[in-house]
Amino acid sequence: MVGPFRALARGIYASVLALALASPALADGLVDNVTGVTLDKDGRVVRFTGVLVTLDGKVTRLLSAKDKRPDKLDWRADMKGRVMLPGMIDAHGHVMELGFRALELDLSDTHSLAEAQAKIAAYAAANPERRWILGGGWNQEVWGLGRFPTAAELDVAVGDRPVWLSRADGHASWGNSAALKAAGVTAKSVAPAGGRIEKSGIQPSGVFVDAAQELVGKVVPTPLGKDRGAAFLKAQSILLGYGVTAIADMGTSLDDWLTFRRIGDAGGLRVRIMSYGLGVDTAVRIGGVGPTPWLYDDKLRMAGVKLYADGALGSRGAWLKAPYSDAPGQSGAGFMSDDVIRNLMSRAAMDGYQVAVHAIGDKANAQVLSAIEELSETYQGDRRWRIEHAQIVDPVDLPRFGKHGIIASMQPTHQTSDRTMAEARLGPQRLAGAYAWASMLRNGSRVAFGSDFPVERPDPWAGWAAAFTRQDANGQPFGGWRPEEAMTREQAWWAYTGGAAHAGFAEDKFGRLAPGQRADFIIVDRDPLLASPTELRATKVEETWVGGQKVYERK
Amino acid sequence: MVGPFRALARGIYASVLALALASPALADGLVDNVTGVTLDKDGRVVRFTGVLVTLDGKVTRLLSAKDKRPDKLDWRADMKGRVMLPGMIDAHGHVMELGFRALELDLSDTHSLAEAQAKIAAYAAANPERRWILGGGWNQEVWGLGRFPTAAELDVAVGDRPVWLSRADGHASWGNSAALKAAGVTAKSVAPAGGRIEKSGIQPSGVFVDAAQELVGKVVPTPLGKDRGAAFLKAQSILLGYGVTAIADMGTSLDDWLTFRRIGDAGGLRVRIMSYGLGVDTAVRIGGVGPTPWLYDDKLRMAGVKLYADGALGSRGAWLKAPYSDAPGQSGAGFMSDDVIRNLMSRAAMDGYQVAVHAIGDKANAQVLSAIEELSETYQGDRRWRIEHAQIVDPVDLPRFGKHGIIASMQPTHQTSDRTMAEARLGPQRLAGAYAWASMLRNGSRVAFGSDFPVERPDPWAGWAAAFTRQDANGQPFGGWRPEEAMTREQAWWAYTGGAAHAGFAEDKFGRLAPGQRADFIIVDRDPLLASPTELRATKVEETWVGGQKVYERK
Repeated sequence: MVGPFRALARGIYASVLALALASPALADGLVDNVTGVTLDKDGRVVRFTGVLVTLDGKVTRLLSAKDKRPDKLDWRADMKGRVMLPGMIDAHGHVMELGFRALELDLSDTHSLAEAQAKIAAYAAANPERRWILGGGWNQEVWGLGRFPTAAELDVAVGDRPVWLSRADGHASWGNSAALKAAGVTAKSVAPAGGRIEKSGIQPSGVFVDAAQELVGKVVPTPLGKDRGAAFLKAQSILLGYGVTAIADMGTSLDDWLTFRRIGDAGGLRVRIMSYGLGVDTAVRIGGVGPTPWLYDDKLRMAGVKLYADGALGSRGAWLKAPYSDAPGQSGAGFMSDDVIRNLMSRAAMDGYQVAVHAIGDKANAQVLSAIEELSETYQGDRRWRIEHAQIVDPVDLPRFGKHGIIASMQPTHQTSDRTMAEARLGPQRLAGAYAWASMLRNGSRVAFGSDFPVERPDPWAGWAAAFTRQDANGQPFGGWRPEEAMTREQAWWAYTGGAAHAGFAEDKFGRLAPGQRADFIIVDRDPLLASPTELRATKVEETWVGGQKVYERK
Repeated sequence: MVGPFRALARGIYASVLALALASPALADGLVDNVTGVTLDKDGRVVRFTGVLVTLDGKVTRLLSAKDKRPDKLDWRADMKGRVMLPGMIDAHGHVMELGFRALELDLSDTHSLAEAQAKIAAYAAANPERRWILGGGWNQEVWGLGRFPTAAELDVAVGDRPVWLSRADGHASWGNSAALKAAGVTAKSVAPAGGRIEKSGIQPSGVFVDAAQELVGKVVPTPLGKDRGAAFLKAQSILLGYGVTAIADMGTSLDDWLTFRRIGDAGGLRVRIMSYGLGVDTAVRIGGVGPTPWLYDDKLRMAGVKLYADGALGSRGAWLKAPYSDAPGQSGAGFMSDDVIRNLMSRAAMDGYQVAVHAIGDKANAQVLSAIEELSETYQGDRRWRIEHAQIVDPVDLPRFGKHGIIASMQPTHQTSDRTMAEARLGPQRLAGAYAWASMLRNGSRVAFGSDFPVERPDPWAGWAAAFTRQDANGQPFGGWRPEEAMTREQAWWAYTGGAAHAGFAEDKFGRLAPGQRADFIIVDRDPLLASPTELRATKVEETWVGGQKVYERK
């Protein structure tokens, strides 16, 4: 790792000198012969055939077919007419979880409990050295189980070691008897505030919801530094393969941050990370006096704080104004009182940290909106309060998103994945403000799109297609689900590029192809503005470039 | 802090550009007309009259009077014949504590309890906004008190707020009644392992030794990021003023590390820091897979792990083979069993971290030596095991320092400060292996010198003078204390320069003036090789340069 770091450090030094001297010998590079498409800062489509790039990886000029190419060039890449786009940006994801999950047992492709049991048993047999079998991605709804699975059903697959598997949404985890025993969980165990232990009679049945996951999670062996590094590099490689050149990491722990820095110090950061510290204490410990500067040539910045107002819909942890339609006694629960959430948001805003609050249920969204409205009187200026997910919003609250520069950070594939579940949880009346992308724009809110990886695959093409069709990969439902909430194709693209950059205070750095922006771009095998939704979903990313350097090429 | 921080970052950026723009060609700079003295890699004196420096702050050549100077130069500094030396290196200090203490109440200049009480009362009156009065530097031995002070004696000075003051050696702290109350300390409180609560009858008397300090320390308000930044910059400014251009930070906490990084990210690091994480867990969390690379142009690196085998002599926390002469029932105590210390050292060495273990008493030194001897069979190669202080060594153990590349990291001013106390604690027989600098060299051990700031002032000139005289600032005792343990003037200088760099695996980076080394140098008002000991102690540092940039100038 020392090698690349030194090489990179030398490279940076050389580029600083080059700028300072503005010497004629050190000319720009040219990416030429492209079918180039980007949005400009107002979201309008711009087409071009070449891009001039400085030695330090910034765009200096977009060229049209008739523009003369410079004579003196350091380098020239001929793209042979292929389609060139700005890199995609995922406004909400979990980098380390993506990497860990990719290296662990992945149940996201299982369609039944039996299939999952077989896969778990096979993985355990193939990995005898692992003291714990860890993984995730299961979803009892996909399995058609109609209930959570149990520890006993996991014991059938693996009995000799603890197994601990998180649900696809990360809001619940499932352990076998060995895991419960290792954690000392018994019938007497009490769920912490904001958590729930699923029971079978008086016994814990094996699934732990939200904060209760920590009852077992705390005894899971901590990953080593090398495990963290491997997970990061795996996640980065996955993201670049999808054409994602920047992401917002929503809930960076201190160890996540230390991992990013180790990779950055070694010259290994490729994807750009807009980091939001997991809670105020984490962000303040790292930033000290406010957000960090952009580090490693605009590859990393701790921009703000991630807070959680509630849980998720699937596990009925989302906080609703009225009870769940399919669980009449339950309305979910807020994670914090109004006072506590305001105090935390205030502590963050006071030092200039951006605030991003997870809110799924209508009650949670209303709570956060009220907090923003109150705090906006004190903390003025360009704050870009973010509400993450903004999934189920009471229609009376929708217009409130249009004030105080609020950003609705939403995930199109959540809508297509959750559709039937959301209908069951909410009933027809409450769907009017669910996944209400177009309403957000109509009300004057800014929208940034992401995937919430690894809850969903970090595939921006699937998200983009969903965003203007309200249909899943199979074209279901016909005509789209509540199609009045579809965005236009261009609006959705903006939410995945310039809008996502703006949501992270990065619009001067990246998000489109224009002079002064970082040369973050991708070469794809089709024109996304001309492709059918099905074709768009099938987009192949052939090359990914970050800061004027090729960092991924499809094999 | 944001203001100075940003100003600082801008300042650096401007100066980098200024250097880069200063000239059409990229020639070297020249520091000329100096009375230059350095040691070479074998510790021999080299004299020169000019130094050529590259744009990136490294020495390319030492020039003698007869050498022709280059025609083309970016810059030239005429030192008008003044004395130029390599920057001094302090091999053992505590950067953040130095800064905090400098900004807090400092009792190190008080000569009696009454004087301290008056100073404490005045400080509290002058700082009404401070919720806790924090500080340190007291020493009941200096006060001639013959016992620890009490909470009641502190209440006399400040009764309205908690007061918490650490002893000069950091191994004990003194609180007033408000502090004990805030911490919930009562007659029933039990000292943790490795700690002691001083008692007056059955009641805590107000002083807490070693690990027991945490009983109150845990309720002291945590410093804010801006406080940490201010403390760091204060410490750095003090160090540069003494001509210290690099230090080993012995026990970097995670928050210390995050502070160093914030300063580094803002372009504010001047002094070079060889960091040793406070315990294995801290180092491993930061480094992940081993020591970090050198960061910020060789300004910062986490090199290894700091462990503590025992406490200090003043508080009778040092672990002795036989009881203290002035406290027959006590021998101090080891902080860890043989197994525990070996396990920790092994965990660190396994990942390539350097291991530095604090050992003051002869028993602690023997324990660490035995651990190194055993571990050296497993962890071979260039390990540079460090024993910090190596203060009281059983003469039979002295030769053991000569094996396995052990580094004795010692502090000359501890000898002059502790002399009478050490005589009382140890009695005459045990002094044969105390502060045994020359014996270390004779036995083939490497010696690195430092000050243990803020326990002692980070004044390398006082340390250097003590090292070859075994006398204090008043020339006491006549002829030197156990003068057979004095080093030569040049040996001592090496321990404060190249030896201290070697002790941190930095000998290829800095520690002397020679081609390829960083241009870290100082301009002083006298020639330290010609000065009398008294004159040497009075050395004035006129300028301090790090990496070819002037970072301090005496006003």
